[in-house]
Amino acid sequence: MSRFFSQKYSTLVPYTPGEQPKDMKYIKLNTNESPYLPSKGVFDAVKSEAERLHLYSDPECSVLTKKIADLYGVDKSEVLVTNGSDEVLNFAFMAFCDSDRGIAFPDITYGFYSVFAKINNVKYREIPLKDDFTIDVNDYIGINENIVIANPNAPTGIYLSLEEIEKIAKSNPENVVIIDEAYIDFGGQSAVGLTKKYDNLLVTMTFSKSRSMAGGRIGFGIGNKALINDLNTIKYSTNPYNVNRLSQIAGAVAIDDNKYYMDNCKEIIKTREYTVAELKKIGFDILESKANFIFAKHDKIQGEHLYKRLKENGVLVRHFTKDKIKDYNRITIGTREQMDILIKKVISILEEIK
Amino acid sequence: MSRFFSQKYSTLVPYTPGEQPKDMKYIKLNTNESPYLPSKGVFDAVKSEAERLHLYSDPECSVLTKKIADLYGVDKSEVLVTNGSDEVLNFAFMAFCDSDRGIAFPDITYGFYSVFAKINNVKYREIPLKDDFTIDVNDYIGINENIVIANPNAPTGIYLSLEEIEKIAKSNPENVVIIDEAYIDFGGQSAVGLTKKYDNLLVTMTFSKSRSMAGGRIGFGIGNKALINDLNTIKYSTNPYNVNRLSQIAGAVAIDDNKYYMDNCKEIIKTREYTVAELKKIGFDILESKANFIFAKHDKIQGEHLYKRLKENGVLVRHFTKDKIKDYNRITIGTREQMDILIKKVISILEEIK
Repeated sequence: MSRFFSQKYSTLVPYTPGEQPKDMKYIKLNTNESPYLPSKGVFDAVKSEAERLHLYSDPECSVLTKKIADLYGVDKSEVLVTNGSDEVLNFAFMAFCDSDRGIAFPDITYGFYSVFAKINNVKYREIPLKDDFTIDVNDYIGINENIVIANPNAPTGIYLSLEEIEKIAKSNPENVVIIDEAYIDFGGQSAVGLTKKYDNLLVTMTFSKSRSMAGGRIGFGIGNKALINDLNTIKYSTNPYNVNRLSQIAGAVAIDDNKYYMDNCKEIIKTREYTVAELKKIGFDILESKANFIFAKHDKIQGEHLYKRLKENGVLVRHFTKDKIKDYNRITIGTREQMDILIKKVISILEEIK
Repeated sequence: MSRFFSQKYSTLVPYTPGEQPKDMKYIKLNTNESPYLPSKGVFDAVKSEAERLHLYSDPECSVLTKKIADLYGVDKSEVLVTNGSDEVLNFAFMAFCDSDRGIAFPDITYGFYSVFAKINNVKYREIPLKDDFTIDVNDYIGINENIVIANPNAPTGIYLSLEEIEKIAKSNPENVVIIDEAYIDFGGQSAVGLTKKYDNLLVTMTFSKSRSMAGGRIGFGIGNKALINDLNTIKYSTNPYNVNRLSQIAGAVAIDDNKYYMDNCKEIIKTREYTVAELKKIGFDILESKANFIFAKHDKIQGEHLYKRLKENGVLVRHFTKDKIKDYNRITIGTREQMDILIKKVISILEEIK
């Protein structure tokens, strides 16, 4: 820390992203990327768009915004495109929370929520999951706090039904309820439709998982026009040209090619169910996942040890040190071939400790 | 504003970017973009990188950071790459300023500084330029406030010498001095070398002007390692994957092709001098510019009227309504051909009012 750093951040601990090895020698099952390439149209589109790189990107992301709006059946004034969904989440913390108006979220969830809260000087409350790692909806009914829930939740993969989301939104009409749907395309049902009915509901999504574009940094939020307006006020006060030209066109082509990506999601779901079945056969305990990852533990091996041995064997998964979940590893669903390698490695690691 | 919007932003007025027309019918001399395309290598590089778009971008921007560091003769720990230079500027306002530690900048300068101050709840002081629109260095000596100065300044184009920058940095050792060098490659001398000597000096730059990549959103800051560390704390607490893959590779290729871009800058300087000479011949008063734009007024025509008539004639320039500068227009230097069209249009507009 330099002697110039503002006191207000003196205790701030930044988010730690999953490892991003610079070589390609790992089977990378640690940051929930898609194992599938972007659709073919994307390659030519970005090359051709590079000829306009000397011109600023459209600050309104008009083309991409309109395509997203059409796909989800909302108006373009109800959509904000951002530099990854972390950006729209941070904007929402900035816009709707402050030292008076706090936010609540599960104690086990996306680790960035507490960081967003701290950097924005927002009071937050972590609500414990039940022992089976599910969310107790009653904990969120009429609580008079802003709320953010990842659905499916991370790193558990557990999904909350639309009816339960609606109960939460309905019972907190004076607070913003953010549903972070980064993983919704792997078997869940989006709450976007509810944004018509509840002006306090903000749904966020990303192109990083189901749309094979983690490297493109495209996220978006959908909600009532007034909420989106507020988020735009934040955007135009920090970084109006937040999404570059190449990502805007890549995202637009990806929406055109929606079927390709949704077919990939189906494949990933199939591979997930296969992987779960195989790992259960060898004694793993796995939470029910509607995401492109699974959260798994094994009675015979410590979570951290399995993570380390897998890494030494060329397979990266994600381990969290938080006490409640330290027995588990979060394993991204890759291709069938990748999962077969994982399973083989896991079997031989388990044999080591027999 | 929704009923959920935080009170702390109730008076926030976002920055207004220059017009970004979605069609191409204008000669666009309003947002200081380069008239030259990116270098050829960029096109293939982004197409090929698109094959890795499904993977997260490197949060450390290692390759690009190292290339920038080498080009400017600093260590990579002294460089932070951001999503445009607006991002590194906002990070600096967040990191080094707060309600106790204010910031000072000229009253006529990049309009975003006051917005960054407001959104971050930072006390700021606008120091009037002299009547000739130059900065009086004495106004910034030992003032015990953080300082941000665009050098060359915008929208005036007026440049402050390295000796004067050094005096400011030296006399405010307990405060951060930010030199925003968005336009430094058009005839000025960068203060990067001074960051070795002054640990309170942060220099910011952008690929948007001299490197033909406004649409790529690449900015960076160079300063003492401890300053850069602080900025990284902010980055990792808001958006760790802030620069996407395609921009990272485009930027890296642009550094490899540095000579191409620096040759373009020489061409732009030549065109600037030509344009200034021609406009002076027909009665314009033009501030001495070391940027890729000029700031010009004419006794016979109101600034806003000229802006409007030029727009009707297919040429976009930028007009600011602030009282002190409302007689002027900021005109980006395009190609010689574009400037000849501008000059021709200006001559006929002047004839209308004779």
